[in-house]
Amino acid sequence: MPMVTMTEIPKSHPRYKSLVLRERLVEGFRAGVVVPQGLIAHGRGEMFDYLLGERTLKEARVASKAAAALIIDAKRPVISVNGNVAALCPDEVVRLSQVAKARIEVGLFHRTDERVSKIVRILEDNGAKDVLGFLPDAVIPGIDHMRGICSKTGIYSADVVLIPLEDSDRAKALAEMGKKTIAIDLNPMSRTSRTATVTIVDEVTRAIPELTLNAEELTEDSRARKRALASYDRDKNLAAVSGKMSQNLECFLKR
Amino acid sequence: MPMVTMTEIPKSHPRYKSLVLRERLVEGFRAGVVVPQGLIAHGRGEMFDYLLGERTLKEARVASKAAAALIIDAKRPVISVNGNVAALCPDEVVRLSQVAKARIEVGLFHRTDERVSKIVRILEDNGAKDVLGFLPDAVIPGIDHMRGICSKTGIYSADVVLIPLEDSDRAKALAEMGKKTIAIDLNPMSRTSRTATVTIVDEVTRAIPELTLNAEELTEDSRARKRALASYDRDKNLAAVSGKMSQNLECFLKR
Repeated sequence: MPMVTMTEIPKSHPRYKSLVLRERLVEGFRAGVVVPQGLIAHGRGEMFDYLLGERTLKEARVASKAAAALIIDAKRPVISVNGNVAALCPDEVVRLSQVAKARIEVGLFHRTDERVSKIVRILEDNGAKDVLGFLPDAVIPGIDHMRGICSKTGIYSADVVLIPLEDSDRAKALAEMGKKTIAIDLNPMSRTSRTATVTIVDEVTRAIPELTLNAEELTEDSRARKRALASYDRDKNLAAVSGKMSQNLECFLKR
Repeated sequence: MPMVTMTEIPKSHPRYKSLVLRERLVEGFRAGVVVPQGLIAHGRGEMFDYLLGERTLKEARVASKAAAALIIDAKRPVISVNGNVAALCPDEVVRLSQVAKARIEVGLFHRTDERVSKIVRILEDNGAKDVLGFLPDAVIPGIDHMRGICSKTGIYSADVVLIPLEDSDRAKALAEMGKKTIAIDLNPMSRTSRTATVTIVDEVTRAIPELTLNAEELTEDSRARKRALASYDRDKNLAAVSGKMSQNLECFLKR
Protein backbone atom coordinates (compact mmCIF):
# COMPACT_ATOMS: atom_id res chain seq x y z
CA MET A 1 0.00 0.00 0.00
CA PRO A 2 1.42 3.42 -0.86
CA MET A 3 2.19 5.81 1.99
CA VAL A 4 -0.81 8.02 2.56
CA THR A 5 -1.42 10.86 4.96
CA MET A 6 -5.02 10.61 5.92
CA THR A 7 -4.96 12.49 9.17
CA GLU A 8 -7.50 15.01 7.97
CA ILE A 9 -10.29 12.58 7.16
CA PRO A 10 -12.25 11.52 10.25
CA LYS A 11 -13.36 7.87 10.15
CA SER A 12 -16.84 9.02 11.07
CA HIS A 13 -17.22 10.84 7.74
CA PRO A 14 -20.09 9.23 5.83
CA ARG A 15 -17.91 8.98 2.72
CA TYR A 16 -14.68 7.94 4.48
CA LYS A 17 -13.63 5.12 2.12
CA SER A 18 -14.21 7.20 -0.96
CA LEU A 19 -12.20 10.09 0.50
CA VAL A 20 -9.34 7.76 1.41
CA LEU A 21 -9.15 6.53 -2.20
CA ARG A 22 -9.20 10.14 -3.36
CA GLU A 23 -6.27 10.94 -1.08
CA ARG A 24 -4.37 7.86 -2.28
CA LEU A 25 -4.78 9.11 -5.83
CA VAL A 26 -3.69 12.64 -4.98
CA GLU A 27 -0.65 11.10 -3.28
CA GLY A 28 0.10 9.13 -6.48
CA PHE A 29 -0.32 12.32 -8.41
CA ARG A 30 2.21 14.14 -6.22
CA ALA A 31 4.61 11.23 -6.70
CA GLY A 32 4.38 11.57 -10.49
CA VAL A 33 2.54 8.28 -10.98
CA VAL A 34 -0.94 9.65 -11.69
CA VAL A 35 -1.57 12.26 -14.43
CA PRO A 36 -4.10 15.14 -14.08
CA GLN A 37 -6.37 13.37 -16.57
CA GLY A 38 -6.29 10.40 -14.19
CA LEU A 39 -7.64 12.57 -11.38
CA ILE A 40 -10.55 13.73 -13.53
CA ALA A 41 -11.24 10.18 -14.66
CA HIS A 42 -11.29 9.10 -11.02
CA GLY A 43 -13.88 11.79 -10.30
CA ARG A 44 -16.09 10.42 -13.06
CA GLY A 45 -15.71 6.99 -11.53
CA GLU A 46 -16.59 8.32 -8.07
CA MET A 47 -19.92 9.50 -9.39
CA PHE A 48 -20.74 6.10 -10.86
CA ASP A 49 -19.69 4.39 -7.64
CA TYR A 50 -22.00 6.75 -5.77
CA LEU A 51 -24.81 5.47 -8.02
CA LEU A 52 -23.82 1.87 -7.17
CA GLY A 53 -24.18 2.73 -3.49
CA GLU A 54 -20.38 2.27 -3.17
CA ARG A 55 -20.77 -1.49 -2.95
CA THR A 56 -20.24 -4.59 -5.10
CA LEU A 57 -23.45 -5.57 -6.89
CA LYS A 58 -24.55 -9.13 -7.53
CA GLU A 59 -23.94 -8.48 -11.25
CA ALA A 60 -20.31 -7.64 -10.50
CA ARG A 61 -19.92 -10.91 -8.57
CA VAL A 62 -21.30 -12.89 -11.51
CA ALA A 63 -18.98 -11.07 -13.93
CA SER A 64 -16.05 -11.59 -11.56
CA LYS A 65 -16.57 -15.38 -11.57
CA ALA A 66 -16.63 -15.42 -15.40
CA ALA A 67 -13.51 -13.25 -15.44
CA ALA A 68 -11.74 -15.61 -13.03
CA ALA A 69 -12.62 -18.55 -15.29
CA LEU A 70 -11.22 -16.72 -18.35
CA ILE A 71 -7.99 -15.78 -16.66
CA ILE A 72 -7.39 -19.29 -15.25
CA ASP A 73 -8.10 -20.98 -18.57
CA ALA A 74 -5.78 -18.53 -20.34
CA LYS A 75 -2.43 -19.67 -21.72
CA ARG A 76 -0.80 -16.25 -21.51
CA PRO A 77 -2.79 -13.99 -19.18
CA VAL A 78 -1.54 -10.44 -18.63
CA ILE A 79 -2.67 -7.75 -16.18
CA SER A 80 -2.32 -4.25 -17.61
CA VAL A 81 -1.53 -1.65 -14.96
CA ASN A 82 -1.79 2.13 -15.33
CA GLY A 83 -1.06 5.02 -12.98
CA ASN A 84 -4.42 5.07 -11.23
CA VAL A 85 -4.38 1.32 -10.60
CA ALA A 86 -0.83 1.51 -9.25
CA ALA A 87 -1.80 4.35 -6.92
CA LEU A 88 -4.95 2.65 -5.67
CA CYS A 89 -4.14 -1.02 -5.15
CA PRO A 90 -0.65 -2.21 -6.16
CA ASP A 91 -0.58 -4.91 -3.47
CA GLU A 92 -3.85 -6.41 -4.65
CA VAL A 93 -2.70 -6.44 -8.27
CA VAL A 94 0.43 -8.35 -7.32
CA ARG A 95 -1.55 -10.84 -5.24
CA LEU A 96 -3.90 -11.48 -8.19
CA SER A 97 -0.97 -12.00 -10.56
CA GLN A 98 0.42 -14.65 -8.22
CA VAL A 99 -2.88 -16.51 -7.80
CA ALA A 100 -3.78 -16.29 -11.50
CA LYS A 101 -0.22 -16.90 -12.73
CA ALA A 102 -0.51 -13.80 -14.86
CA ARG A 103 2.23 -11.43 -15.93
CA ILE A 104 1.99 -7.75 -15.14
CA GLU A 105 2.63 -5.11 -17.79
CA VAL A 106 2.59 -1.37 -17.24
CA GLY A 107 0.47 0.13 -20.01
CA LEU A 108 0.04 3.90 -20.02
CA PHE A 109 -2.12 6.14 -22.15
CA HIS A 110 0.12 9.12 -21.34
CA ARG A 111 3.42 7.26 -21.46
CA THR A 112 6.76 8.52 -20.23
CA ASP A 113 9.70 6.32 -19.28
CA GLU A 114 9.80 8.01 -15.91
CA ARG A 115 6.19 7.15 -15.09
CA VAL A 116 6.64 3.57 -16.26
CA SER A 117 9.70 3.10 -14.08
CA LYS A 118 7.99 4.62 -11.03
CA ILE A 119 5.05 2.27 -11.47
CA VAL A 120 7.33 -0.75 -11.95
CA ARG A 121 9.06 0.25 -8.71
CA ILE A 122 5.77 0.45 -6.79
CA LEU A 123 4.76 -2.99 -8.06
CA GLU A 124 8.16 -4.45 -7.17
CA ASP A 125 7.94 -2.91 -3.71
CA ASN A 126 4.72 -4.87 -3.38
CA GLY A 127 6.35 -8.14 -4.38
CA ALA A 128 5.98 -8.22 -8.17
CA LYS A 129 8.65 -9.87 -10.30
CA ASP A 130 9.52 -9.39 -13.99
CA VAL A 131 7.12 -6.53 -14.56
CA LEU A 132 6.89 -5.73 -18.28
CA GLY A 133 6.42 -2.39 -20.00
CA PHE A 134 9.65 -0.49 -19.54
CA LEU A 135 11.22 -1.68 -22.78
CA PRO A 136 8.33 -2.06 -25.22
CA ASP A 137 9.07 -3.80 -28.52
CA ALA A 138 5.66 -4.12 -30.20
CA VAL A 139 2.67 -1.98 -31.14
CA ILE A 140 -1.05 -2.66 -30.79
CA PRO A 141 -2.41 -2.10 -34.32
CA GLY A 142 -5.00 0.62 -34.91
CA ILE A 143 -4.00 3.21 -32.30
CA ASP A 144 -1.28 5.82 -32.48
CA HIS A 145 2.21 4.70 -31.65
CA MET A 146 2.70 6.32 -28.23
CA ARG A 147 -0.54 4.88 -26.93
CA GLY A 148 -0.15 1.50 -28.57
CA ILE A 149 3.34 0.41 -27.64
CA CYS A 150 3.61 -2.74 -25.57
CA SER A 151 5.75 -5.81 -24.93
CA LYS A 152 5.92 -8.69 -27.39
CA THR A 153 6.10 -11.25 -24.59
CA GLY A 154 3.37 -9.46 -22.63
CA ILE A 155 0.22 -7.78 -23.89
CA TYR A 156 1.10 -8.28 -27.56
CA SER A 157 1.07 -12.07 -27.38
CA ALA A 158 -1.40 -12.47 -24.50
CA ASP A 159 -4.61 -14.41 -25.06
CA VAL A 160 -6.41 -12.83 -22.08
CA VAL A 161 -5.75 -9.31 -20.85
CA LEU A 162 -7.16 -7.80 -17.66
CA ILE A 163 -7.69 -4.08 -18.29
CA PRO A 164 -8.71 -2.23 -15.14
CA LEU A 165 -9.64 1.45 -15.78
CA GLU A 166 -8.67 1.21 -19.43
CA ASP A 167 -8.97 3.84 -22.14
CA SER A 168 -11.65 2.85 -24.64
CA ASP A 169 -9.44 3.13 -27.74
CA ARG A 170 -6.92 0.73 -26.27
CA ALA A 171 -9.68 -1.60 -25.06
CA LYS A 172 -11.22 -1.70 -28.54
CA ALA A 173 -7.87 -2.24 -30.27
CA LEU A 174 -7.05 -5.18 -27.96
CA ALA A 175 -10.43 -6.74 -28.71
CA GLU A 176 -9.81 -6.29 -32.44
CA MET A 177 -6.53 -8.18 -32.09
CA GLY A 178 -8.71 -11.16 -31.12
CA LYS A 179 -7.78 -11.15 -27.47
CA LYS A 180 -10.21 -11.85 -24.71
CA THR A 181 -10.37 -8.87 -22.41
CA ILE A 182 -11.63 -8.39 -18.86
CA ALA A 183 -12.57 -4.80 -18.09
CA ILE A 184 -12.98 -3.31 -14.62
CA ASP A 185 -14.91 -0.11 -15.22
CA LEU A 186 -17.46 1.86 -13.18
CA ASN A 187 -19.27 3.20 -16.24
CA PRO A 188 -21.56 0.50 -17.64
CA MET A 189 -22.08 2.62 -20.76
CA SER A 190 -18.43 3.18 -21.68
CA ARG A 191 -17.02 1.73 -24.89
CA THR A 192 -14.53 -0.17 -22.76
CA SER A 193 -17.39 -1.82 -20.86
CA ARG A 194 -19.21 -2.60 -24.07
CA THR A 195 -16.30 -4.10 -25.99
CA ALA A 196 -14.67 -6.31 -23.33
CA THR A 197 -15.32 -10.04 -23.25
CA VAL A 198 -16.19 -9.74 -19.57
CA THR A 199 -16.88 -6.45 -17.82
CA ILE A 200 -16.88 -6.08 -14.05
CA VAL A 201 -18.72 -2.90 -13.12
CA ASP A 202 -17.19 -2.21 -9.74
CA GLU A 203 -14.68 0.00 -8.00
CA VAL A 204 -11.19 -1.37 -8.67
CA THR A 205 -10.05 -1.76 -5.05
CA ARG A 206 -13.14 -3.88 -4.38
CA ALA A 207 -13.06 -5.70 -7.74
CA ILE A 208 -9.49 -6.98 -7.70
CA PRO A 209 -9.59 -8.77 -4.31
CA GLU A 210 -12.94 -10.29 -5.32
CA LEU A 211 -11.41 -11.52 -8.58
CA THR A 212 -8.49 -13.02 -6.66
CA LEU A 213 -10.87 -14.89 -4.34
CA ASN A 214 -12.78 -16.25 -7.32
CA ALA A 215 -9.59 -17.27 -9.07
CA GLU A 216 -8.53 -19.19 -5.94
CA GLU A 217 -11.87 -20.94 -5.77
CA LEU A 218 -12.08 -21.86 -9.45
CA THR A 219 -8.48 -22.95 -10.03
CA GLU A 220 -9.15 -26.63 -9.34
CA ASP A 221 -12.68 -26.80 -10.72
CA SER A 222 -12.96 -26.73 -14.50
CA ARG A 223 -16.68 -27.51 -14.46
CA ALA A 224 -17.36 -24.54 -12.20
CA ARG A 225 -15.36 -22.40 -14.62
CA LYS A 226 -17.53 -23.54 -17.53
CA ARG A 227 -20.65 -22.79 -15.54
CA ALA A 228 -19.35 -19.34 -14.59
CA LEU A 229 -18.71 -18.47 -18.24
CA ALA A 230 -21.99 -19.97 -19.47
CA SER A 231 -24.05 -18.02 -16.97
CA TYR A 232 -22.53 -14.65 -17.86
CA ASP A 233 -24.09 -12.44 -20.53
CA ARG A 234 -22.25 -9.13 -20.86
CA ASP A 235 -25.00 -7.01 -22.37
CA LYS A 236 -27.67 -8.27 -19.99
CA ASN A 237 -25.29 -7.78 -17.08
CA LEU A 238 -24.53 -4.18 -18.11
CA ALA A 239 -28.21 -3.42 -18.66
CA ALA A 240 -29.02 -4.75 -15.18
CA VAL A 241 -26.30 -2.58 -13.61
CA SER A 242 -27.48 0.53 -15.46
CA GLY A 243 -31.01 -0.20 -14.33
CA LYS A 244 -29.92 -0.37 -10.70
CA MET A 245 -27.91 2.86 -10.97
CA SER A 246 -30.92 4.52 -12.48
CA GLN A 247 -33.21 3.28 -9.70
CA ASN A 248 -30.76 4.51 -7.08
CA LEU A 249 -30.79 7.94 -8.64
CA GLU A 250 -34.57 8.04 -8.37
CA CYS A 251 -34.64 6.61 -4.85
CA PHE A 252 -32.11 8.95 -3.24
CA LEU A 253 -34.55 11.77 -2.74
CA LYS A 254 -37.24 9.47 -1.39
CA ARG A 255 -35.09 8.25 1.50
CA MET B 1 -11.19 34.72 -18.99
CA PRO B 2 -7.99 32.88 -18.06
CA MET B 3 -5.46 32.20 -20.78
CA VAL B 4 -6.14 28.80 -22.23
CA THR B 5 -4.39 26.84 -24.92
CA MET B 6 -7.07 24.97 -26.74
CA THR B 7 -5.31 24.25 -29.98
CA GLU B 8 -5.81 20.54 -29.58
CA ILE B 9 -9.59 20.55 -29.30
CA PRO B 10 -11.43 20.88 -32.64
CA LYS B 11 -14.68 22.87 -32.42
CA SER B 12 -16.44 20.06 -34.23
CA HIS B 13 -15.85 17.70 -31.30
CA PRO B 14 -19.23 16.55 -29.90
CA ARG B 15 -18.07 17.34 -26.38
CA TYR B 16 -16.17 20.52 -27.25
CA LYS B 17 -17.58 22.71 -24.47
CA SER B 18 -16.94 20.12 -21.83
CA LEU B 19 -13.36 19.62 -23.00
CA VAL B 20 -12.71 23.37 -23.00
CA LEU B 21 -13.86 23.56 -19.38
CA ARG B 22 -11.59 20.66 -18.51
CA GLU B 23 -8.63 22.44 -20.12
CA ARG B 24 -9.49 25.63 -18.26
CA LEU B 25 -9.42 23.69 -15.02
CA VAL B 26 -6.13 21.96 -15.80
CA GLU B 27 -4.72 25.40 -16.64
CA GLY B 28 -5.95 26.67 -13.25
CA PHE B 29 -4.34 23.67 -11.66
CA ARG B 30 -0.99 24.42 -13.31
CA ALA B 31 -1.30 28.00 -12.09
CA GLY B 32 -1.74 26.84 -8.49
CA VAL B 33 -5.35 27.98 -8.27
CA VAL B 34 -7.05 24.59 -8.47
CA VAL B 35 -6.09 21.75 -6.09
CA PRO B 36 -5.87 18.09 -7.21
CA GLN B 37 -9.03 17.37 -5.22
CA GLY B 38 -10.69 20.05 -7.35
CA LEU B 39 -9.84 18.13 -10.52
CA ILE B 40 -11.40 14.98 -9.08
CA ALA B 41 -14.50 16.90 -8.02
CA HIS B 42 -14.74 18.37 -11.51
CA GLY B 43 -14.62 14.90 -13.06
CA ARG B 44 -17.43 13.89 -10.82
CA GLY B 45 -19.42 16.94 -11.89
CA GLU B 46 -18.72 16.18 -15.56
CA MET B 47 -20.51 12.87 -15.23
CA PHE B 48 -23.55 14.45 -13.62
CA ASP B 49 -23.60 17.05 -16.40
CA TYR B 50 -23.43 14.20 -18.90
CA LEU B 51 -26.60 12.84 -17.29
CA LEU B 52 -28.22 16.27 -17.68
CA GLY B 53 -27.41 16.14 -21.38
CA GLU B 54 -24.93 19.02 -20.80
CA ARG B 55 -27.74 21.56 -20.94
CA THR B 56 -29.72 23.77 -18.58
CA LEU B 57 -32.94 22.05 -17.55
CA LYS B 58 -36.24 23.83 -17.06
CA GLU B 59 -35.88 23.03 -13.33
CA ALA B 60 -32.58 24.94 -13.23
CA ARG B 61 -34.23 27.96 -14.89
CA VAL B 62 -36.99 27.96 -12.27
CA ALA B 63 -34.42 27.67 -9.45
CA SER B 64 -32.32 30.42 -11.03
CA LYS B 65 -35.25 32.86 -10.98
CA ALA B 66 -35.85 32.12 -7.29
CA ALA B 67 -32.14 32.54 -6.61
CA ALA B 68 -32.12 35.89 -8.42
CA ALA B 69 -35.05 37.03 -6.31
CA LEU B 70 -33.23 36.02 -3.10
CA ILE B 71 -30.02 37.75 -4.01
CA ILE B 72 -31.74 41.00 -5.08
CA ASP B 73 -33.86 41.15 -1.95
CA ALA B 74 -30.80 40.51 0.21
CA LYS B 75 -29.32 43.25 2.38
CA ARG B 76 -25.80 41.81 2.41
CA PRO B 77 -25.40 39.31 -0.42
CA VAL B 78 -22.01 37.61 -0.83
CA ILE B 79 -20.68 35.38 -3.60
CA SER B 80 -18.26 32.73 -2.30
CA VAL B 81 -15.56 31.85 -4.83
CA ASN B 82 -13.25 28.83 -4.70
CA GLY B 83 -10.44 27.64 -6.98
CA ASN B 84 -12.60 25.76 -9.46
CA VAL B 85 -15.01 28.67 -9.86
CA ALA B 86 -12.14 31.13 -10.34
CA ALA B 87 -10.60 28.87 -12.98
CA LEU B 88 -13.86 28.30 -14.84
CA CYS B 89 -15.68 31.65 -14.97
CA PRO B 90 -14.08 34.59 -13.12
CA ASP B 91 -15.50 37.14 -15.61
CA GLU B 92 -19.04 35.88 -15.14
CA VAL B 93 -18.73 35.93 -11.35
CA VAL B 94 -17.60 39.56 -11.45
CA ARG B 95 -20.43 40.51 -13.82
CA LEU B 96 -22.97 38.88 -11.48
CA SER B 97 -21.53 40.69 -8.47
CA GLN B 98 -22.00 44.02 -10.27
CA VAL B 99 -25.57 43.32 -11.36
CA ALA B 100 -26.60 41.86 -8.01
CA LYS B 101 -24.60 44.39 -5.95
CA ALA B 102 -23.01 41.48 -4.11
CA ARG B 103 -19.59 41.30 -2.53
CA ILE B 104 -17.15 38.58 -3.53
CA GLU B 105 -15.29 36.53 -0.94
CA VAL B 106 -12.71 33.87 -1.66
CA GLY B 107 -13.60 30.82 0.45
CA LEU B 108 -11.38 27.76 0.17
CA PHE B 109 -11.70 24.26 1.57
CA HIS B 110 -7.95 23.70 1.16
CA ARG B 111 -6.83 27.19 2.16
CA THR B 112 -3.39 28.70 1.70
CA ASP B 113 -2.63 32.42 1.58
CA GLU B 114 -0.96 31.91 -1.78
CA ARG B 115 -4.03 30.37 -3.37
CA VAL B 116 -6.29 33.05 -1.94
CA SER B 117 -4.09 35.81 -3.31
CA LYS B 118 -3.90 34.19 -6.76
CA ILE B 119 -7.67 33.93 -6.89
CA VAL B 120 -8.11 37.52 -5.72
CA ARG B 121 -5.75 38.56 -8.52
CA ILE B 122 -7.73 36.65 -11.18
CA LEU B 123 -10.95 38.26 -10.00
CA GLU B 124 -9.36 41.74 -9.98
CA ASP B 125 -8.00 41.14 -13.48
CA ASN B 126 -11.62 40.56 -14.45
CA GLY B 127 -12.78 43.85 -12.93
CA ALA B 128 -13.62 42.90 -9.34
CA LYS B 129 -13.08 45.42 -6.55
CA ASP B 130 -12.65 44.90 -2.80
CA VAL B 131 -12.53 41.13 -2.95
CA LEU B 132 -12.66 39.67 0.56
CA GLY B 133 -11.00 36.56 1.92
CA PHE B 134 -7.31 37.36 2.16
CA LEU B 135 -7.44 38.62 5.72
CA PRO B 136 -10.14 36.55 7.42
CA ASP B 137 -11.23 37.66 10.88
CA ALA B 138 -14.15 35.37 11.73
CA VAL B 139 -14.99 31.67 11.84
CA ILE B 140 -18.10 29.83 10.67
CA PRO B 141 -19.20 27.85 13.77
CA GLY B 142 -19.31 24.06 13.58
CA ILE B 143 -16.48 23.31 11.17
CA ASP B 144 -12.78 23.10 11.83
CA HIS B 145 -10.90 26.35 11.87
CA MET B 146 -8.98 26.13 8.57
CA ARG B 147 -12.12 25.35 6.63
CA GLY B 148 -14.34 27.75 8.50
CA ILE B 149 -12.41 31.02 8.49
CA CYS B 150 -14.06 33.91 6.69
CA SER B 151 -14.49 37.69 6.74
CA LYS B 152 -16.65 39.45 9.32
CA THR B 153 -17.87 41.99 6.76
CA GLY B 154 -18.36 39.29 4.11
CA ILE B 155 -19.69 35.76 4.53
CA TYR B 156 -19.89 36.00 8.33
CA SER B 157 -22.44 38.81 8.33
CA ALA B 158 -24.10 38.05 4.97
CA ASP B 159 -27.82 37.31 4.86
CA VAL B 160 -27.65 35.54 1.48
CA VAL B 161 -24.61 33.60 0.28
CA LEU B 162 -24.17 32.20 -3.21
CA ILE B 163 -22.14 28.98 -2.89
CA PRO B 164 -21.18 27.56 -6.28
CA LEU B 165 -19.45 24.13 -6.07
CA GLU B 166 -19.42 24.21 -2.28
CA ASP B 167 -18.25 21.53 0.15
CA SER B 168 -21.21 20.03 1.99
CA ASP B 169 -19.85 20.66 5.51
CA ARG B 170 -19.44 24.37 4.79
CA ALA B 171 -22.84 24.54 3.08
CA LYS B 172 -24.51 22.95 6.08
CA ALA B 173 -22.70 25.20 8.57
CA LEU B 174 -23.76 28.34 6.68
CA ALA B 175 -27.37 27.16 6.68
CA GLU B 176 -27.14 26.50 10.42
CA MET B 177 -26.00 30.10 10.94
CA GLY B 178 -29.46 31.06 9.66
CA LYS B 179 -28.25 32.36 6.31
CA LYS B 180 -30.12 31.86 3.09
CA THR B 181 -27.88 30.00 0.68
CA ILE B 182 -27.97 29.50 -3.07
CA ALA B 183 -26.13 26.39 -4.19
CA ILE B 184 -24.92 25.69 -7.72
CA ASP B 185 -24.24 21.96 -7.76
CA LEU B 186 -24.47 19.24 -10.40
CA ASN B 187 -25.33 16.50 -7.91
CA PRO B 188 -29.02 16.76 -6.98
CA MET B 189 -28.45 14.26 -4.15
CA SER B 190 -25.54 16.01 -2.42
CA ARG B 191 -25.91 17.38 1.08
CA THR B 192 -25.09 20.81 -0.33
CA SER B 193 -28.03 20.53 -2.76
CA ARG B 194 -30.33 19.34 -0.02
CA THR B 195 -29.49 21.97 2.59
CA ALA B 196 -29.42 25.14 0.47
CA THR B 197 -32.40 27.51 0.42
CA VAL B 198 -32.32 27.42 -3.39
CA THR B 199 -30.33 24.87 -5.40
CA ILE B 200 -29.55 25.32 -9.06
CA VAL B 201 -28.59 21.95 -10.54
CA ASP B 202 -26.56 23.10 -13.49
CA GLU B 203 -23.00 23.45 -14.69
CA VAL B 204 -21.50 26.61 -13.15
CA THR B 205 -20.46 28.35 -16.40
CA ARG B 206 -24.03 28.03 -17.66
CA ALA B 207 -25.66 28.75 -14.30
CA ILE B 208 -23.93 32.03 -13.44
CA PRO B 209 -24.73 33.94 -16.68
CA GLU B 210 -28.32 32.67 -16.42
CA LEU B 211 -28.48 33.95 -12.84
CA THR B 212 -27.11 37.33 -13.95
CA LEU B 213 -29.77 37.61 -16.68
CA ASN B 214 -32.50 36.79 -14.18
CA ALA B 215 -31.11 39.29 -11.68
CA GLU B 216 -31.19 42.00 -14.38
CA GLU B 217 -34.78 41.14 -15.26
CA LEU B 218 -36.05 40.98 -11.71
CA THR B 219 -34.26 44.01 -10.24
CA GLU B 220 -37.12 46.42 -10.90
CA ASP B 221 -39.98 44.00 -10.40
CA SER B 222 -40.67 43.04 -6.79
CA ARG B 223 -43.90 41.21 -7.68
CA ALA B 224 -42.07 39.01 -10.17
CA ARG B 225 -39.52 38.27 -7.46
CA LYS B 226 -42.28 37.15 -5.08
CA ARG B 227 -43.74 34.94 -7.79
CA ALA B 228 -40.35 33.42 -8.54
CA LEU B 229 -39.83 32.50 -4.90
CA ALA B 230 -43.38 31.25 -4.41
CA SER B 231 -43.22 28.95 -7.42
CA TYR B 232 -39.97 27.27 -6.34
CA ASP B 233 -39.99 24.10 -4.21
CA ARG B 234 -36.49 22.81 -3.60
CA ASP B 235 -37.28 19.18 -2.87
CA LYS B 236 -39.70 18.82 -5.77
CA ASN B 237 -37.22 20.55 -8.05
CA LEU B 238 -34.40 18.19 -7.01
CA ALA B 239 -36.66 15.16 -7.39
CA ALA B 240 -37.58 16.24 -10.92
CA VAL B 241 -33.93 16.68 -11.86
CA SER B 242 -32.98 13.28 -10.41
CA GLY B 243 -35.84 11.73 -12.35
CA LYS B 244 -34.58 13.20 -15.61
CA MET B 245 -31.01 12.07 -14.96
CA SER B 246 -32.29 8.64 -14.18
CA GLN B 247 -34.26 8.47 -17.43
CA ASN B 248 -31.18 9.56 -19.38
CA LEU B 249 -29.13 6.86 -17.72
CA GLU B 250 -31.67 4.24 -18.82
CA CYS B 251 -31.84 5.64 -22.34
CA PHE B 252 -28.08 5.54 -22.87
CA LEU B 253 -27.90 1.77 -23.07
CA LYS B 254 -30.85 1.58 -25.43
CA ARG B 255 -29.31 3.89 -28.04
